[in-house]
Formats: sequence, C-alpha cells, structure tokens
Amino acid sequence: MPKISNKGLSMPQSPIRKLVPFAEKAAKAGKSIYYLNIGQPDIKTPTIAMQAVKDADIEVLSYSRSEGSEQYRTKIANYYKNNDIHVKHDDIIVTTGGSEALLFAFGSIMDVDDEVIIPEPFYANYNGFSTASGVKVVPVISKIEDNFALPPIEEFEKLITPKTKAILICNPGNPTGYLYSKEEIEKLAAIVKKHDLFLIADEVYREFAYDGATHYSILQVDGLEDNAIVIDSVSKRYSMCGARIGCLVSKNKDVIATALKFAQARLSPPTLAQIASEAALETPQSYFDDVIEEYVERRNVLIEELNKIEGVQVANPKGAFYCIAQLPVKNSDVFAQWLLEDFDVDGETVMVAPAAGFYSTPGVGLNQIRIAYVLNTESLKKAVNILKEALKVYKD
Amino acid sequence: MPKISNKGLSMPQSPIRKLVPFAEKAAKAGKSIYYLNIGQPDIKTPTIAMQAVKDADIEVLSYSRSEGSEQYRTKIANYYKNNDIHVKHDDIIVTTGGSEALLFAFGSIMDVDDEVIIPEPFYANYNGFSTASGVKVVPVISKIEDNFALPPIEEFEKLITPKTKAILICNPGNPTGYLYSKEEIEKLAAIVKKHDLFLIADEVYREFAYDGATHYSILQVDGLEDNAIVIDSVSKRYSMCGARIGCLVSKNKDVIATALKFAQARLSPPTLAQIASEAALETPQSYFDDVIEEYVERRNVLIEELNKIEGVQVANPKGAFYCIAQLPVKNSDVFAQWLLEDFDVDGETVMVAPAAGFYSTPGVGLNQIRIAYVLNTESLKKAVNILKEALKVYKD
Repeated sequence: MPKISNKGLSMPQSPIRKLVPFAEKAAKAGKSIYYLNIGQPDIKTPTIAMQAVKDADIEVLSYSRSEGSEQYRTKIANYYKNNDIHVKHDDIIVTTGGSEALLFAFGSIMDVDDEVIIPEPFYANYNGFSTASGVKVVPVISKIEDNFALPPIEEFEKLITPKTKAILICNPGNPTGYLYSKEEIEKLAAIVKKHDLFLIADEVYREFAYDGATHYSILQVDGLEDNAIVIDSVSKRYSMCGARIGCLVSKNKDVIATALKFAQARLSPPTLAQIASEAALETPQSYFDDVIEEYVERRNVLIEELNKIEGVQVANPKGAFYCIAQLPVKNSDVFAQWLLEDFDVDGETVMVAPAAGFYSTPGVGLNQIRIAYVLNTESLKKAVNILKEALKVYKD
Repeated sequence: MPKISNKGLSMPQSPIRKLVPFAEKAAKAGKSIYYLNIGQPDIKTPTIAMQAVKDADIEVLSYSRSEGSEQYRTKIANYYKNNDIHVKHDDIIVTTGGSEALLFAFGSIMDVDDEVIIPEPFYANYNGFSTASGVKVVPVISKIEDNFALPPIEEFEKLITPKTKAILICNPGNPTGYLYSKEEIEKLAAIVKKHDLFLIADEVYREFAYDGATHYSILQVDGLEDNAIVIDSVSKRYSMCGARIGCLVSKNKDVIATALKFAQARLSPPTLAQIASEAALETPQSYFDDVIEEYVERRNVLIEELNKIEGVQVANPKGAFYCIAQLPVKNSDVFAQWLLEDFDVDGETVMVAPAAGFYSTPGVGLNQIRIAYVLNTESLKKAVNILKEALKVYKD
C-alpha cells in the first residue's frame, strides 16, 4: 500500500472541527447545542448581495480573470479608499477566501523551512497553511493577563533568524479579539523594515472595532509599501462565509506578480460568489452600524456573564467576535468533549473551541477556550449559564 | 526590500495566459480574434443548474462542510454508479475545482522533492501545482506520430526512483485529446501496484469520449483501491468552469482522511456553486448527447481542415476538446504572438496556445500548438483558414 506523505501526516486537524463528531452524536441524541465554537455568524447576508446573484442572467458560467475582474478590483480599491487605505486595482488579487490569499502569500515569499513569526494564540488554520507550505511557525506568546497586547519588540527580535521571512498578525485578532493600536503597528513596521521582512496582516475583521476604536491597517504605514501584504475576505464583513471570496493586497509589485502566477495556475476564483461580493460593496453603512451595535451588545453580555463565574478569567475583546476565556479546568479539550457527551441543563449544552489548538507552543492554553459570540444575547446568556453550571460539577 | 521566494520565482507562467496582453492589444486595435487558446467552452450551462441558484432563498450564505454536504456527495456517488464506478459518499471530498483536488492529492501523498511521472504533453498547470507543492515532475514523452498513445511501460519503469510517489494521467487528455484504452489503464495499474505508487487520474473530460469509445476509469480496476485517486470537476462536464467545484475521489481511507485535513484548513468549497453543481447532476442525457454531437462535428471539421494545410500534422483526438497540431514553424510561441500582432484576414485573426508549455522537457513541442475546439464549426473553419493563410506568408 502506498504511503501518505510526511506533510500529510503532520497536517494538524482543525481544533474547531475535531469535536464535531461528538456534537453530531449529542444532537442526534436530542440535545440542543449552543454553537460557540466556530466563527459562523447568524447575521443576515446583505440582501443586495444575494439579489445580485438571483438577478444575474448567466448563459455560460465561465471562468473569471485569475486575478478577479478589473471592475470588481476597482470597486475593492474604492472600498479601501473609503477606509483611508490607498491602493490601486492592480495591487489586488481576488482569491478564493482569505485562506487562499494566505497560501499565495506564503508561497510567494517563503521557501520550505523558512520561518514566520506569529503572536500566539493565533487563528488555528495558520498552522495548517504553514504545514501545507512547508513553512515553520515561530510563535511569540501574548498573554491573557495583558489582554493579548503585542508582545515586547525584544521578544520578536530574539526569534529572528536568517530563515525568518515574515511576521504575521491577525488584526483585530481571532481568537483574542485584540485590536492593535497605531503605535503597535508602527513598532511592527519598524522591525520588519530593520530586518528586511514582510509583514502580513490578516485584516478580515477590519470593520469589527468597538468602543470607538479605529482599525489601523498596515497599508496605512508610510514607507512600508514593499513589506506589507494584507489578507482580506468578504466572509465576516458581509456574513457571507460560504462565498469564499477574499483578496491579497500589496503595493509590492513583485509580490503581486508572483501571487498572480499561483492564481493563474488555479484558473479563477468562483464566479457566482464574485457577483455577490461585488454587489455587497454597495451595502449601506446602516447595515454595519446595526451589526456592530449587535456585536458590542453580545460582547458586553458575554464578558459580564463570564466574569460572574468563579475562577474564570477573560480578556475583554476590542474587535472581531471572539474571546479567550481561561477556565478552572486542567484540560479544556476534555472539558469541551464532556460538555457535549455528558452534560446538559434541561436538555441543552454548549460547544466551545478548546484553545490549545490556537497555540503553537505545546502545553500552553490548555485551560483556555475560544468563544465565538455569533449568537444573540438571549442564547449567549443561556450558553454561559450552562458553562457556569457545568463548572460547578465538572471534575478533572 | 524583502525577497520573493525561490518557489515563487520558479512558478511557471501559464502558457495559456502569457499571450493575453498581445490579444488584448490586438482586440483594442479593432482586430476580431477567434479564441482557440483556452478550454472555455461556448456551450450553455444547463438551465437547471443556474435556476437552482436563482431559486435558492439564502438568508445567511454560510460555510458548507469542508468535504461538501453529505447530500451532494451522495448524489455524486450516484452519478459515478451510473458510470459503472462504485464509490461511497465518504470516498469523496468536494473541492474548489479540480485544481484544488490535485493540490490536496499532491499534499497528501508527496513531500518536497518527491517525484511524479507524467506522460507529456500534459495540462500545463500540472507544472504550477508541482512547483507550488515542491514536487518534481518527471516527464515521459508520448509522441504525435503515435497519436499520443501511452508510452511503453519500460519507459515508465526506467524513470522510477525511490523518490517516485505517483503517476499522473489526464484521461481523456488535455492537451492531446487522447483516450486511454482499458488495456492501457490496466498496464498503468500493474506498474503502480508493482512499485507501490499512487495512480492519479484527472478524469474531468470523462463524458467527452467519441467514435463510440467508452471511458475507462482507474476506479474501475479491481485491486487498485489503495492506489487510485481520481480528480474530477464540473467545469467542462456542465460548461460551468466559473463554478469552481470539483472533487477528489479515492477508496484509500488514509488518502481521504489526509485530504480532509487540507480541506478543513481552507474551511469549505464555495456554497453557491455547490448548489448549482448539485442541481447540474439532474441534467438530462439529451444535453450530453447534443454536446457530444456538437464536439464530434467540431473535431471533424477542425481535423479535416487542418489536414488540408501543407506541412501541418495533427493527432486525431478521441476525447476532450483539444488537439495538438504540429506546424511548419520553428517556434510556435513567436508564431502565435505574430498572429496576434502582425497578421489578419479581413481584420480577423486567431489565438492559439503554443505547445511547448505543455511539455516539461526543454526544447520539445516547439513547433506544436494546442487548439481548443470550443467554437462552432463556422468559426472553426474561419479560424483554420486564417492559420492556413498565415502559414503561407509566415517566415521564421
């Protein structure tokens, strides 16, 4: 029997997905589950986006341009301009989700065994994309006690080797909800310039900045044009995760020319989803105002309720729609599975993501979970109450 | 300025795309162009597929399962059953086009510097996917004089090293139009079993078998269950290239479990396109009968007309919708560019794909072009006439 590759064997399983079989079993057994494990919002996709797909009269569903149509990219550039980010349509390559944008970025700037420094905890699939690309993740720990702020610059510099090619951040952060300040971004810019590295920023949660804070993009830093690569996506912005449309943005012409070769090999991003995504750009500001208001309310309820539970420590998220909570348990993996298999309050339980999978350093985050606040406040209250009751009786 | 990776630098540019700027310039200058360079059929997408998208009332365009919905995969398994291929829904992973299925297959079975043997000429993007995966393509030459039949088995065995992990074929072939016989598939099956290799077959043109020939799938070979991996796609079958839906099929559970980890990292294939693709499975047989009839007619016209040109040699394709033609020119790259820049018949010219990019061996196929017969017979006649007139005056 022919063998699986070492790469294939070392591909990590997504921590968000590995509890799915237990959840399916629990659901089949009649349990009601509050799903706080995955960033699939319940927010409605803008009608204008879905209507555009219905209205499209397509005789032949053909390939689009590999980099996305000039029209769509021009509109994306205009969206950025409205966010005080100044790029042209040919600084943009439309991709199949932010995932593909990250794969293209990794492929364009890193060879096998090259290193990328990532503040952890980080979006778990960065591990998968790194393994798929043959690249090594070098984590730098950010701490719950510091609300997951940028680790000191010296911590980054200690980790830089001749193999280091990039620093990757997610801003606002999944899973931390941390929003980097302008000063923090400028510190990172200074390091990457000093060491001739790329700075990749996953900014898919750009709109989700709370408490009057403003998102500051790495594309806004003067002099960082050659170093900055932004990963973006329509998934969360317009609650259209299933579209699978994202983009890679850089003013570095070599990066764009190289990423384009990867894009051409896979022919084109999905055509129907591009129609929806282009139309979504016309979504009125009121949609975002409502959505942000809703998320702030959810966050406030979630954090307030979590803080009421004895032994629970939680970092207050300033963006995105996740938070990391530290629980009085030894192993949140076991706890999360137990919640699905052996616990309920009136037939209801909750599914959370164990946080260890969001760390690359072994043994860290074992007592933490990630909560995606993608349900309404009523459900969130019930879900947190289930956690509270569970922690009263759970023994590990 | 930080540097592009060696991988990025060595990513090949698609030979299908590199003439595009010249075509755009010619079109802007008012020339009419017959596009025979790319496998984008003019055939209508089945109405049932596009209607399903219009009819879908989607409130939240959410992620699908990473491997595709069980319902869709069950229907795909049923489609295979109708083609005398017996697989279950959990032998299938839905992917973003055949491209992604191939990337998942490469990642699951090959490490950096491993080797895959491919009969050339082959689909040019196999080069790109190999480079992206860090894998080495080892070509085995099939010849136009033999109509691109399977090279002798000894030629394969000569190339097998400890690094060889797979043989990859495209059946029916792009760019050759060659349809492998049952005997040829069985020969390949015997080699891969003997040497413990995988056999990957890109069978996206399965339906396009002409002159009463039947396609024989590697999944139909008894005892090949652990070795066979099929790459499939809805793109050509239903003329919906822009959907970007394909699948990876294997009865080897380890391959599926590993490919699933790659699939989970990128979350899900596009949801809207899956709706179209699932509905497309209900396309009536009459659609295919008409399409095949149309392609046979096109092929007949194309081959007949090409054979009339002095100095042109052409392999008669038995499947797909491509053919390789050998021209009395030294460098078809230069010739194809000249056609766009400096030649026309009554303001019309033709765009073809130089064939060298479909070979991995340097210097082979320089006098060949690939023609995609994706236009109606009237246009094909005019296009071949332009080639004929061009060859009368062209000097290289």
